[in-house]
Amino acid sequence: MAKSSSISGMRKLVVAATLTVFTCSQGLLMEASKVRGKYPYNSAVVPLLSELVKLILSILLLRRARARDPAGTIMTTDVKSVMLFPIPSIIYVMHNNVQFYTMAYVDAATYQILGNLKIVTTGILFRFALGRLMTRTQWIALLLLTVGATVSQISGCKGETLSAPMAGYALGVLSACLSATAGVYTEFLLKKNNDNLYWQNVQLYAFGVVFNGLRLTWDDFFGENSGGNWLFDCTNGFTAITWLIVINFSFSGLFVSWLQKFADTIVKVYATSSAMLLTALLSVSFFGLEPSLQLFLGITIACCSLVLYFMPPDLPKEKGMGVLPVTSGGGVNGDGNTSGSAYGGGATPRGGGSGGDKLN
Amino acid sequence: MAKSSSISGMRKLVVAATLTVFTCSQGLLMEASKVRGKYPYNSAVVPLLSELVKLILSILLLRRARARDPAGTIMTTDVKSVMLFPIPSIIYVMHNNVQFYTMAYVDAATYQILGNLKIVTTGILFRFALGRLMTRTQWIALLLLTVGATVSQISGCKGETLSAPMAGYALGVLSACLSATAGVYTEFLLKKNNDNLYWQNVQLYAFGVVFNGLRLTWDDFFGENSGGNWLFDCTNGFTAITWLIVINFSFSGLFVSWLQKFADTIVKVYATSSAMLLTALLSVSFFGLEPSLQLFLGITIACCSLVLYFMPPDLPKEKGMGVLPVTSGGGVNGDGNTSGSAYGGGATPRGGGSGGDKLN
Repeated sequence: MAKSSSISGMRKLVVAATLTVFTCSQGLLMEASKVRGKYPYNSAVVPLLSELVKLILSILLLRRARARDPAGTIMTTDVKSVMLFPIPSIIYVMHNNVQFYTMAYVDAATYQILGNLKIVTTGILFRFALGRLMTRTQWIALLLLTVGATVSQISGCKGETLSAPMAGYALGVLSACLSATAGVYTEFLLKKNNDNLYWQNVQLYAFGVVFNGLRLTWDDFFGENSGGNWLFDCTNGFTAITWLIVINFSFSGLFVSWLQKFADTIVKVYATSSAMLLTALLSVSFFGLEPSLQLFLGITIACCSLVLYFMPPDLPKEKGMGVLPVTSGGGVNGDGNTSGSAYGGGATPRGGGSGGDKLN
Repeated sequence: MAKSSSISGMRKLVVAATLTVFTCSQGLLMEASKVRGKYPYNSAVVPLLSELVKLILSILLLRRARARDPAGTIMTTDVKSVMLFPIPSIIYVMHNNVQFYTMAYVDAATYQILGNLKIVTTGILFRFALGRLMTRTQWIALLLLTVGATVSQISGCKGETLSAPMAGYALGVLSACLSATAGVYTEFLLKKNNDNLYWQNVQLYAFGVVFNGLRLTWDDFFGENSGGNWLFDCTNGFTAITWLIVINFSFSGLFVSWLQKFADTIVKVYATSSAMLLTALLSVSFFGLEPSLQLFLGITIACCSLVLYFMPPDLPKEKGMGVLPVTSGGGVNGDGNTSGSAYGGGATPRGGGSGGDKLN
């Protein structure tokens, strides 16, 4: 079991907030990197390069950790354990393909709205695959986050959205399930033992590099512009902004794996959903878009959801009937009620007691 | 203090649900009573007639109550008490005028959306004028109800809503404050002593008849079609549906006063907001409107709000650390945790202990 209880809630909050800022600038950078509405570079190369950067950084961090504390840097190296690490990459490959087919059935707005389903599917897997307990209020909070994200994306005029054939919706649901599975499975991998996070990352990103490389090779043979060789021209069209995107992707990924090890996938979901709303808000000033009532309402709903999910419920205080926070069991979060940090509460090690979870 | 704790939560739920159905059919009946998009009768006569019906019914019910239990039917008849009862009618007259001026500044869609502000203003007055305690979750629930109602009303296409001059918004806020004041003040009136509800209603509706009559007389002298005499032609153009509307208004009003005496204004707010959403949903089948994603999302948010407001929070149960519900003080609702009824929880007599409130 990971030693997550030794990480303070404030630190989790800082990492989650940093992830939000990084995810948010991702959207803005990608928008800014377009030339006449198109990417002037091979956009499939960006994830490969960022996997590579993450792999190199993780190797360096792992070396430093081993030099400092050889005994404390636990590394499980038997094949049975290592062979679990390509699974997230394989799920992502499947996910990419399902996304591709979904796009064939639904328009872009509907596609974006269907993407929010992953919030609910992540909650369901979090509960039933990882066995983590959630209160009714937390279920409602996740439902509200989904609704809030959807509200912000309503483009408005009637008949424009949600008029796709059933196959499109089915694929959208499948896509949400795969996305949730990848997230929850990664959390399971990172928390299943006390292995050093950097060692776990090295395994994850090594397979990530391999699968992304395979994908580019596949594109060279069977893709639209087949016949080239990505190894020789992969950074064609790159500008300073493109490299910033690569660096941004890399650090976002490292923050996500840190959160999945020491907090949980739901914290990640909140960070990325907040980023989506923040991006929409910043786009208003950056790209001169009109602020919509929908966006304002969506942000309000997401804020309500955040408070409901992470703040402990307010209990009656008078008459001296102090209600003690239940902090027994493995699921102690060191800070829950005191720091009042918005992100601090959701973090409990996998399989730990459910006391801390239920209180938040 | 009113004997509200003797009314079961199930009965409150039934009355609230009935009010929802009545309010809902109001909208549908009014839509059905239109001929070529216009009301073929003087629509200002409907409230007068319904006040009259309520007055007559209340007199009959009061007579019956006095015949059955002369000692138990408490009636405060001193002038100081009676003279508090025209105040709601006066506030409604002010409210009608403010609404009229608001309409001059904002379009119909914005007007409808601004109307939802009364949910929040009612909560604020409920807390600070009546001194009732609400938990943080309940505040969030009220905010969500406002947002949910608004989401369902988003007409969509950009630039259509919320582009009114500031004066329009200011008047909208004033209107929401007046509406909330009328509701909360009526609750105060009905709960300030143990007077029989029918006696209180007789006073309320007698003044209602007077003020509605004055309004029609004013219209005769200074209104658009001045010169007539409403007393002689007031039911011109009435059909069976119009009479159904009068009867519907009357019973809705009686249910509202019952809820304000034995439950509270927030329960009323939920019943009417639910009715609004239900009406929109039924309009889809009755009037062949296209069901919108907005409506579906709005209803989801409102349901979440309902659960959050009225269901007691889920507390940790394991380890035998039973958290006792605080039911001390005057604010005991007899049913809170057992019946689990969605509407049952909000009812506590004015000025009572806050224990019951805080738990729900």
